[in-house]
Amino acid sequence: MAETQIRFGILGCADVARKVSRAISLAPNAALYAVGSRSLEKATKFAASNGFPESAKIYGSYDAVLDDPNVDAVYVPLPTSLHIKWAVLAAEKKKHILLEKPVALNVGEFDKILEACESNGVQLMDSTMWMHHPRTSKMKEFLSDPEKFGELRSIHAVSTFAADPDFLENDIRAKPDLDALGALGDVGWYCVRAVLWANDFRLPKSVTAFPGTVFNKAGVIISCGAALHWEDGKVATFHCSFLGNLTMSVTATGTKGSLYINDFLIPFEEKQASFSTASESRFSNLVTEWGPPPSQSTITTDLPQEVYMVTEFSRLVKSVKNDGTVAEKKWPTVSRKTQLVLDAVKISVEKGCEAVSLN
Amino acid sequence: MAETQIRFGILGCADVARKVSRAISLAPNAALYAVGSRSLEKATKFAASNGFPESAKIYGSYDAVLDDPNVDAVYVPLPTSLHIKWAVLAAEKKKHILLEKPVALNVGEFDKILEACESNGVQLMDSTMWMHHPRTSKMKEFLSDPEKFGELRSIHAVSTFAADPDFLENDIRAKPDLDALGALGDVGWYCVRAVLWANDFRLPKSVTAFPGTVFNKAGVIISCGAALHWEDGKVATFHCSFLGNLTMSVTATGTKGSLYINDFLIPFEEKQASFSTASESRFSNLVTEWGPPPSQSTITTDLPQEVYMVTEFSRLVKSVKNDGTVAEKKWPTVSRKTQLVLDAVKISVEKGCEAVSLN
Repeated sequence: MAETQIRFGILGCADVARKVSRAISLAPNAALYAVGSRSLEKATKFAASNGFPESAKIYGSYDAVLDDPNVDAVYVPLPTSLHIKWAVLAAEKKKHILLEKPVALNVGEFDKILEACESNGVQLMDSTMWMHHPRTSKMKEFLSDPEKFGELRSIHAVSTFAADPDFLENDIRAKPDLDALGALGDVGWYCVRAVLWANDFRLPKSVTAFPGTVFNKAGVIISCGAALHWEDGKVATFHCSFLGNLTMSVTATGTKGSLYINDFLIPFEEKQASFSTASESRFSNLVTEWGPPPSQSTITTDLPQEVYMVTEFSRLVKSVKNDGTVAEKKWPTVSRKTQLVLDAVKISVEKGCEAVSLN
Repeated sequence: MAETQIRFGILGCADVARKVSRAISLAPNAALYAVGSRSLEKATKFAASNGFPESAKIYGSYDAVLDDPNVDAVYVPLPTSLHIKWAVLAAEKKKHILLEKPVALNVGEFDKILEACESNGVQLMDSTMWMHHPRTSKMKEFLSDPEKFGELRSIHAVSTFAADPDFLENDIRAKPDLDALGALGDVGWYCVRAVLWANDFRLPKSVTAFPGTVFNKAGVIISCGAALHWEDGKVATFHCSFLGNLTMSVTATGTKGSLYINDFLIPFEEKQASFSTASESRFSNLVTEWGPPPSQSTITTDLPQEVYMVTEFSRLVKSVKNDGTVAEKKWPTVSRKTQLVLDAVKISVEKGCEAVSLN
């Protein structure tokens, strides 16, 4: 018997929805079932060019998707300012929710989404794809190895891309009424997630934005960064920007090892991804050489990382739907922590780079 | 006719002097001529095991080296707190000076050294070896390329090594009366230099230490970091520490390219060194892949980087000595700027991570 497929409805025709639609169609336990847009024409075109089956439901509103009793789960790639409205409504209609990042404009809004999901018993997961790549768990294995990596001391993440002038003024991610968190909410989200991930999701003691935040004309952050630190001396930094060439690097040092990766959030290739590590690095006798040089591990996968994400989400949804399991709390908890740190960075920026406590 | 060789005297038998002695013996225009230590026995042993010729002068004091009229230049690897005394004395004795980093405990002290060097017409250079590796100028070519790299937007440097508990208490670099700048003056110096180097040695507008500085029992910094920013929106961060596995990474983003290097201050191998770059990186249509991946450039050299440093220093010394040229100002200027930033980080640490202006 074929595996139960979770039927997805897509809210809106955002660019990123093309990638996730493909992932849904590739995931063995998920199916493209419906798409809704404020424009029926846009929804029709989107479905036609993104692998939706002939039988797919095309709706001229988001509400219609939520009202379709056959939709099990919705993917919400709407601008961040609309998340609270549509995620809460979706939960109330008992739809499980795969929510684009940043999950909300602030943790207060996210808590309302969380509450709606909990009281309606629906699964919530944010769409941070790299978390689900098999490479990520391999890297975590290394970071957790007391001999090869030891205790984490520092992690530094960079996520940038070079947006053109039109993007910096007109893209959703640069508009104060749509994605008010700008580069921080977009590329910064991934950095913050990486930093928390490496720290086993322990929240830092404080977050301090770097001087030199860049805003666009509308006052949206297009480049910023922050330093984080933990009680036990661990430190982290991240830099996120729409102004630098596409870069996504992480360098982490432990007491015994180092981790290097230059494509942490989207691998250079869909089905093959690498990271590099070194352990117990030492100088030669005269300190003229050192080693070992980073050694590369390559992971080959059958599917791109976003398919692993959809598969995992659908597995959890199926468990709630068919087996009556309580929705998995891990993912919403991780989303909330990421949002908490984002909020703290924003507050620090607003307060002229004051340290913002998270305790 | 053989090339004129600059005759070096070494002040003290520090560990790093072994490496530099070898470099002097390998440099075509330099020669090991004398070594002085407070212990004649130590100096004798040092000369015997570090390639000094039979004719080398072995002295039981630093003064004796300075008083030897045949010594052209001294290499000063003494603890930082002794730099001002011995560098000023050396200048007064008309000895050219290759000075270990950090050049002084603060820029006030360094200015006295500078003054002594200028008024005595001697060449001063700090011993930041990686600046002289042929790879460094290749990387600079990339960073200066308007098409391949564009305008620098951010640079992030990490330099750490995992010191043992004995080092953290007893090494010179952890003693308040010897190297009071601790990890900041040691591994931090290289990070600050890299950041300034990438910025064409323009001083930042401000420097802000990260929260989470770690001190040893004696109050010396053993782990810290800072954010720097420039008027035009460029930003930099660095993290330096005696607590993390040996790591020396730089990630720089420009408007059109990215630079990656994992062994910037000492190459993994003596005679071969690499760095990686990418230009105009772009996502695939569905943002499921991107590229180009970093492409590696490898530079093969005849000699290790410290030999290039000694050769360049000796070339400048010869020019002053034989041709009456005025001492080259570039290197002392670069040393002073590095020290200025170090001082600002220290002040920021002391002021609870306040931004320290450098204008």
